[in-house]
Amino acid sequence: MYSKEIESLLKSHKAEIGDSIELTFGKEKFSGTIMPRPEIGDDSILVIKQQNGYNIGIRVGKGAKISKLPLEKKSFSFAKADVKYDKDLPKVGLIYTGGTIGSKIDYVSGGVYSFTKPEELIADVPELAGIANLEISNPFSILSEDMNYKDWQRIAQEVAKSLNGGARGVVVTHGTDTMHYSSAALSFMLSGLNGPVVYTGAQRSSDRGSSDAFINLISATQIAARSNVAEVGILMHGSSSDNFCDFNRGTKVRKMHTSRRDAFKSINNLPIARITTDSNIEYLSEHREIDSEGKHKVVANTDFEPKVALIKVYPNSDPEIIDHYVGKAYKGIVLEGTGLGHVPTSPSIKEMSWIPHIERANEKGVVIGMTSQTLYGRVSSNVYRNLREVAKAGAIHCEDMLPEVAYVKLGWLLANHKKEEDVKRLLVTNLAGEITERIETDWYM
Amino acid sequence: MYSKEIESLLKSHKAEIGDSIELTFGKEKFSGTIMPRPEIGDDSILVIKQQNGYNIGIRVGKGAKISKLPLEKKSFSFAKADVKYDKDLPKVGLIYTGGTIGSKIDYVSGGVYSFTKPEELIADVPELAGIANLEISNPFSILSEDMNYKDWQRIAQEVAKSLNGGARGVVVTHGTDTMHYSSAALSFMLSGLNGPVVYTGAQRSSDRGSSDAFINLISATQIAARSNVAEVGILMHGSSSDNFCDFNRGTKVRKMHTSRRDAFKSINNLPIARITTDSNIEYLSEHREIDSEGKHKVVANTDFEPKVALIKVYPNSDPEIIDHYVGKAYKGIVLEGTGLGHVPTSPSIKEMSWIPHIERANEKGVVIGMTSQTLYGRVSSNVYRNLREVAKAGAIHCEDMLPEVAYVKLGWLLANHKKEEDVKRLLVTNLAGEITERIETDWYM
Repeated sequence: MYSKEIESLLKSHKAEIGDSIELTFGKEKFSGTIMPRPEIGDDSILVIKQQNGYNIGIRVGKGAKISKLPLEKKSFSFAKADVKYDKDLPKVGLIYTGGTIGSKIDYVSGGVYSFTKPEELIADVPELAGIANLEISNPFSILSEDMNYKDWQRIAQEVAKSLNGGARGVVVTHGTDTMHYSSAALSFMLSGLNGPVVYTGAQRSSDRGSSDAFINLISATQIAARSNVAEVGILMHGSSSDNFCDFNRGTKVRKMHTSRRDAFKSINNLPIARITTDSNIEYLSEHREIDSEGKHKVVANTDFEPKVALIKVYPNSDPEIIDHYVGKAYKGIVLEGTGLGHVPTSPSIKEMSWIPHIERANEKGVVIGMTSQTLYGRVSSNVYRNLREVAKAGAIHCEDMLPEVAYVKLGWLLANHKKEEDVKRLLVTNLAGEITERIETDWYM
Repeated sequence: MYSKEIESLLKSHKAEIGDSIELTFGKEKFSGTIMPRPEIGDDSILVIKQQNGYNIGIRVGKGAKISKLPLEKKSFSFAKADVKYDKDLPKVGLIYTGGTIGSKIDYVSGGVYSFTKPEELIADVPELAGIANLEISNPFSILSEDMNYKDWQRIAQEVAKSLNGGARGVVVTHGTDTMHYSSAALSFMLSGLNGPVVYTGAQRSSDRGSSDAFINLISATQIAARSNVAEVGILMHGSSSDNFCDFNRGTKVRKMHTSRRDAFKSINNLPIARITTDSNIEYLSEHREIDSEGKHKVVANTDFEPKVALIKVYPNSDPEIIDHYVGKAYKGIVLEGTGLGHVPTSPSIKEMSWIPHIERANEKGVVIGMTSQTLYGRVSSNVYRNLREVAKAGAIHCEDMLPEVAYVKLGWLLANHKKEEDVKRLLVTNLAGEITERIETDWYM
């Protein structure tokens, strides 16, 4: 239900959910289909699905006018498929955490369907039933931008439960904005993995013709059910066509585009595997493989220290930002420096030098990691004299780790290791494929 | 001269600048050629050029030992070329501001040569004399990581002086780390341009076999002397081979690799032009062309407001960082949001919502721009309801502008416009090619 104000506005214009309308409000004009109030959402915001397929929310004030546009109403219903257990298929966990991929909108009724029941899911993507026996769980439904470390912890627990309960692999559906932070977190949190943990999502909702939801979901389930990979990764479209998906290592991948379906790219690495729409899996890089002999129990070490900051360094940037976080009792800071891992060192405006601030934070026991805003390539602490100054002040150059991954790793290390020297040593030790020893020339862009 | 301690250490081992040595200090061992003390540098740090061509600086404490390695000494000198004015060639300004490209090291004597005199420069790159009559200036020598807005202002003044003094185009040599911030600054600061302003630099110093310094300098001079472009841009290697260089728009380019020679890439755009090593110029995208008829005077509006912050947003990020900058009387903030321009909006941990903080900053007159950490693609304020929340709180979604460019633009706008509404309007108005109306599919990665 919407707020009283919206309900009465609709009533007075004889408009209801599913109607196609034009809403005039001050100088603004909106047209589209009236949607029901989203489950998590402000009840005083009217949601309209526009012709381009996107929803907008409008805070309707006094003086709004509605005129109904003609549109034939169709009834809409999901076909119900039987969910039968197939003893020849592997068991795969499907953990649905929200985001575009897990929901579907009925244009006419405006109903929002969440894939929380297997029969609904399989009805909509019948191919899934031929790949695996799916065990679906839905610990929560959270938008990607709102995810935090507590959500990562719950996902990690769910994945461990599913794998220890006999699933061969797990698919995690997740909003795309912060999916690579989440996949990095699980890469560090889960030990003893003996199957694929496949994050997937959609850049375009399943009610748009160009949606990537179905191919991503099918391909992710294929990787979970059939691949030999015992790692956490992200599977999304590998090109702007619907021809293949890439399964990228969870610690070497990044969202590189706001809206393209092939937004996720492996950085300083190749994808682990590529899967075509006819389900052919090609392995592209070395990876941890499933041990078919051994017994494995997945352990989730989910402790996480949220008092870690990720700070971008740029010309004119004020180094007192470090003192700000030290003052708030932060335990770690990851800097996104320039080039090989620089900060302003001997600028003409003396207060702009970051060196004394890094030094003081380091003396207080704050662990400081250095990464590069170039994203590609490796930072270094000894190519130039100024880099050595940065290192001498206490910053630890984090090899070819992505800034986002170094941030997640430091938060996890600080919660799981008491000694500062252990944290510093492990920060530059490869634990989950986050550090690539040798970057090949043809991996760039 | 080094410090007394270093001088006496060298003396006691009969070692001098240019000698090849092995230095043992505690558990560490370094070998290479002793270099002279850098002009800007701590005199208590001994600089050694290693065999890989890189310099390292060592703070030598008590107990250091030096043993000399055998190496034949060679004398080193530049050939002196005559600098003759060629009336058939255009005049091009060359503004040398420091960085790797402008310096050259004599391995044996250890002397650091700066290209401050035309005869030295032309002796080393004799091709330049056949391209243009160069007018060289050297307002300062600053490492890229230490550049700030005052340096941008001085470069802008030098460029304007050179162009208004009759130069057809200008080459600016610059350290690479922050070159794209600097090129963005000049793109906004210079109006009435009627010739190319070509930033260039080097990823590898000119004393390494794989240096890109010479080809970049020659190609930049070609673009300045011959191209029809009336814009500010960055010219660097376009591939990992020595076959071509790209001239990228100054507001659409970014350093994307720590060390590769083709580190600079146009984002959400093609390069303006490509120039092969046989000096063939191919124009790749629409650009502002030189008006051969008109009279133009370049005006440098160099005012810049340094109290602008560039903040990265990430899971668990503390929104009080906004209050921190508001408390320091900042006038503008550019956020690097996730995806289409999101911040945590309704997270399960309520204090993590950025909305009230953005709202309060906006109410106090702080201008807040929103960009995306994906770099590629365009942000939007209306695809999802949460995006509208962000916009309603006061953040302005900055189209497809790079975060670094939005930061520089906002600093420039705030210094040059008094009315908040003008700053907000101009932030999303294309002024210097920083906003691309339509991004083509094949421009990605």
